[in-house]
Amino acid sequence: MPRPRREPRRPAVTVLRLGHRPGRDPRLTTHVALVARALGAQRLYLEPPDPGLAARIDAVRRAWGGAFEVVGVKDWKRVVREFPGTIVHLTMYGQALERVVPRLRRAKELLIIVGGAKVPGDLYRMASVNVAVGHQPQSEVGALALTLDRLLGVPGPGAWAGAHRTIVPTARGKRVRTIPSEAGA
Amino acid sequence: MPRPRREPRRPAVTVLRLGHRPGRDPRLTTHVALVARALGAQRLYLEPPDPGLAARIDAVRRAWGGAFEVVGVKDWKRVVREFPGTIVHLTMYGQALERVVPRLRRAKELLIIVGGAKVPGDLYRMASVNVAVGHQPQSEVGALALTLDRLLGVPGPGAWAGAHRTIVPTARGKRVRTIPSEAGA
Repeated sequence: MPRPRREPRRPAVTVLRLGHRPGRDPRLTTHVALVARALGAQRLYLEPPDPGLAARIDAVRRAWGGAFEVVGVKDWKRVVREFPGTIVHLTMYGQALERVVPRLRRAKELLIIVGGAKVPGDLYRMASVNVAVGHQPQSEVGALALTLDRLLGVPGPGAWAGAHRTIVPTARGKRVRTIPSEAGA
Repeated sequence: MPRPRREPRRPAVTVLRLGHRPGRDPRLTTHVALVARALGAQRLYLEPPDPGLAARIDAVRRAWGGAFEVVGVKDWKRVVREFPGTIVHLTMYGQALERVVPRLRRAKELLIIVGGAKVPGDLYRMASVNVAVGHQPQSEVGALALTLDRLLGVPGPGAWAGAHRTIVPTARGKRVRTIPSEAGA
């Protein structure tokens, strides 16, 4: 039975992706979701909702385990206002990540917000903190990856809870171990 | 024989992006390029070439400085074969990043290869090392960001060489400083 990873206290992280464009190429938001999941966030709030994308990410979860979920959101301001924790807005204009990380690590609940090309101006004042990963034009996918890394670290190998598959790290090629389902599953 | 060196030595990094699809949504490859530039790579080889994308990234360079360039590539195998350094293929099936980082840091020249959904099988054996950033389905943009971070670090604030603009990190809103051009420019 894979155990939950419990270590020195780490914040519970939710990611909010604003300005997704359903119907356009979904790859960029898919990458936001994959990074969020692979680096230990618990949930992606997706604004606006995209059930197709949520289903594809859920298929990843079913195969590879963990409890990550994509939750569609229509009213992002309400999500931000009602979030019971620290609101982190990733923007190239913000304060240096390294400077705010100690504060963020002490939080119990974090909402990390990544926008698209056009970010609503309100966000800068609704955020508890505006954070820059480098001070150059940057990808929100890259910025999210580095932020989650600083807060939660990169998980090591080993199957996640409920996984049907797990990777065996290898120098060449691909090794995937299949994990038998529980009886009746 | 170790050569005299300035600074803690860091490898010169080039990124090779395989399987770009010109004509489809270019955002994902744009994000690969932005991450490569923002985190200190010198160059992106783009296969196949996409002059429009290269021009857009060059506009970023002109505004924000540095010497990053996008170079179109038709024959990626030739680029890999002729590269005078260590070939790093990012893949979720590879060895853990943390394990190979010490070796990569000692390299003088690194070529970091990120594929799209379909990666040619040849790549696994042409690479000097296959590297996983986590062992879960992952974004190549996120994986590249974390790899470059481990090798080169996240640059601090301050204008890059030749920049016309630079960001002044700030808690709220956006502060951009304009840098006067050299006389005659």
